[in-house]
Amino acid sequence: MKSNIKMRLLSKVFQPLITIPKNAKIKSTEVTCKSQKLLLECGLIRPTSSGLFAILPLAQRAMDKLERHICKHIEAAGAQRISLSSLTPASLWDKSGRLQEMGPELMKATDRHGKQYVLAPTHEEAITDLLADVGPLSYKQLPLILYQISSKFRDEHRPKHGLLRARHFTMMDAYSHHASEDCVLNTYERISRAYRDIFEGLGLKVYRVEAPSGAMGGSLSHEWQAVAEAGEDSLTICQRCQHAGLEAKCPRCGGEGEVVSSIEVGHTFVLNTRYSSPLGACYTDAQGARPPLRAACYGVGGSRLLAACVEAGGRWPRGVAPYSALLVPPKEGSKEWQQLGWSAVEQVYSQLSVLPTLRDDVIVDDRCDMTIGKRLMQANRMGYPYVVVMGKAALESPPRYELVCESSTQLLTMPELLKTIDTIDHGNMAAEKVTA
Amino acid sequence: MKSNIKMRLLSKVFQPLITIPKNAKIKSTEVTCKSQKLLLECGLIRPTSSGLFAILPLAQRAMDKLERHICKHIEAAGAQRISLSSLTPASLWDKSGRLQEMGPELMKATDRHGKQYVLAPTHEEAITDLLADVGPLSYKQLPLILYQISSKFRDEHRPKHGLLRARHFTMMDAYSHHASEDCVLNTYERISRAYRDIFEGLGLKVYRVEAPSGAMGGSLSHEWQAVAEAGEDSLTICQRCQHAGLEAKCPRCGGEGEVVSSIEVGHTFVLNTRYSSPLGACYTDAQGARPPLRAACYGVGGSRLLAACVEAGGRWPRGVAPYSALLVPPKEGSKEWQQLGWSAVEQVYSQLSVLPTLRDDVIVDDRCDMTIGKRLMQANRMGYPYVVVMGKAALESPPRYELVCESSTQLLTMPELLKTIDTIDHGNMAAEKVTA
Repeated sequence: MKSNIKMRLLSKVFQPLITIPKNAKIKSTEVTCKSQKLLLECGLIRPTSSGLFAILPLAQRAMDKLERHICKHIEAAGAQRISLSSLTPASLWDKSGRLQEMGPELMKATDRHGKQYVLAPTHEEAITDLLADVGPLSYKQLPLILYQISSKFRDEHRPKHGLLRARHFTMMDAYSHHASEDCVLNTYERISRAYRDIFEGLGLKVYRVEAPSGAMGGSLSHEWQAVAEAGEDSLTICQRCQHAGLEAKCPRCGGEGEVVSSIEVGHTFVLNTRYSSPLGACYTDAQGARPPLRAACYGVGGSRLLAACVEAGGRWPRGVAPYSALLVPPKEGSKEWQQLGWSAVEQVYSQLSVLPTLRDDVIVDDRCDMTIGKRLMQANRMGYPYVVVMGKAALESPPRYELVCESSTQLLTMPELLKTIDTIDHGNMAAEKVTA
Repeated sequence: MKSNIKMRLLSKVFQPLITIPKNAKIKSTEVTCKSQKLLLECGLIRPTSSGLFAILPLAQRAMDKLERHICKHIEAAGAQRISLSSLTPASLWDKSGRLQEMGPELMKATDRHGKQYVLAPTHEEAITDLLADVGPLSYKQLPLILYQISSKFRDEHRPKHGLLRARHFTMMDAYSHHASEDCVLNTYERISRAYRDIFEGLGLKVYRVEAPSGAMGGSLSHEWQAVAEAGEDSLTICQRCQHAGLEAKCPRCGGEGEVVSSIEVGHTFVLNTRYSSPLGACYTDAQGARPPLRAACYGVGGSRLLAACVEAGGRWPRGVAPYSALLVPPKEGSKEWQQLGWSAVEQVYSQLSVLPTLRDDVIVDDRCDMTIGKRLMQANRMGYPYVVVMGKAALESPPRYELVCESSTQLLTMPELLKTIDTIDHGNMAAEKVTA
């Protein structure tokens, strides 16, 4: 009965749904926050060991989209993508002093010849060593901005909150190198604008907060905090000027602050010569001298950002949803089912796929032994941006469909429905363009 | 002087060019083969430790394209993308028996609580444990094909040949699970067809050769060998029927075989219950019984395949080239340079970018202090599929440009040039479609 058009079917997606009883432990870990519970229950992730996760197909689609979103904005700021090995010689960490400083947080592996490697949580040592190794760059080649999106490792003493504090996670890390401190600061602000575009594009409320530099070293650093109930961190937002910081009284206008919970989704650092001096990475200036490179580094937590999107609640951000639209056909055996048949489902699927913003991004909830109500409840929990329901009105002439999106449900003919989605999507894209 | 249009400029790309003298060692490793030498000298990769590499921006672009190419074909065969952690509990490897079998080839890390992990070279144990953990799948959910593209680790005793035998590499690994052996074999052949499409799309001559299953276990396996001079492996191709194997005389037709060097770019295995039995992964059949799942697994070496493309020689395969087209403007101070100015370069760049197949994929060799000849020599070495030169004929009316592609050089007006590229590209795509 199902044929012709190749539709994406939810029944074929590997999505092991579970229900987690209150206070239950999963792989001996407590379920402590909303994103963790939702990601687990909706079959998006699955713990495989303490603080380690399998990213399942729907979450993987979201991660792939998130990565492309980050790449687009960071490359627009001039960054070039590379990949550094996860295995970084421990000798480099010793030279920078971080082998001792970070201690047991560093995962380590020893090879068959006895050489020790750090499973890198970040790559300041590795990138600086690379630039030292290729020999001095000319000042004409600066600034140079390199970035990667890759697995990172941190041996958390007590992993928790699902993807929020995992031991293996995905991170975008960028490194800029410069001849002058002015250039460092200009680029730092340029990348900060790219960060704002990244977070705004996801509909997240993220504040840049001045922060201590900690183990990273350097002279200036900012945390990027997304407002979220389940957050481990907190920040104070001035009621008067919206300045975000850690102090109760606003340092800018003296206004009173409101404390909110937050998730750290990024961290940026001006490093200057913190790593280039000990690791010997220099450039050739116009006079032929070889001063050390000046650097800044920038991190965005990939899997953390995904969790933050889920924590923010409601529907997936449009650009990151595993699928943009879910089509819910009638229940098997219902009057609609009998009169419309599967060909009507294929037709609606094709019509939706005509919209460029939905191409390859519509999925059918073909578990038609379940009532529309039950499937709709699961769909809303999953948070697909658009849910299209073929209910009773699909029998009318012309047929009408329920469009569930944002916070409303509307009964629309197909042309109306397409126009509504198109208008919302173009509104979103226009909003993103303004910030870009 | 350079303004208006945002062109991609080669001078801004991080591409540390070097010349490797004969018999020189790089990071105490000999340079033993063509792809290794070319990738190093062209500034595409850079060793960071024995058998470990930094993938630099141009190679990264190629890798990103290669990944998308592999994803497209493997998903068309029904596979769903996931990510498993690189850290797999050593206890799982112990259960399967491979902790002992693979011994020192496995990189290991011990966490702060003393628990041992294997840095996975492959994920049979992990995927099987995941399927055991989610509880028995229903037979209706089978076959289930999951895949990932991720970092893998193998502690080679003596890493060599650059990306061909590295200790950290990129691999696409897929796993299919089934209720019946028939279904295993059907899917095995379906994925094998996807493999053929992947390799043909890259213009590589790859043979499927029956092979021993080795440490992987299971009942049937094939190596996928790409013909390449520098290959460590070899295979025998029957002069009469083209059957590829390891025997001197063809087992099919008795014809004489020719021995050629080759690179293993993939390996596929029918595993049946090799892992599901010891790790307890079963499914529920129609009668409610719970037999063990039957499996097959499939690997394609990502970084190896990239090296194989370079080994194959000549220009990059069209779909994997870091940039599809390189534009070479006149030398600074030349008559063409003076009369045309930078605006003519921008115009040609825009005209090329009109072709959908070249959009965002053209780069300008703006190192105009170098002669056209020298830049052209480097361009041919790098193997850009299309090189467009603004030489003397660019002053004619209408202007004509040299198009260097495949094995020819033609002097063409812009409309002729666009038509030529379009024809070649559509030919390539049509060829790929036929095989798909």
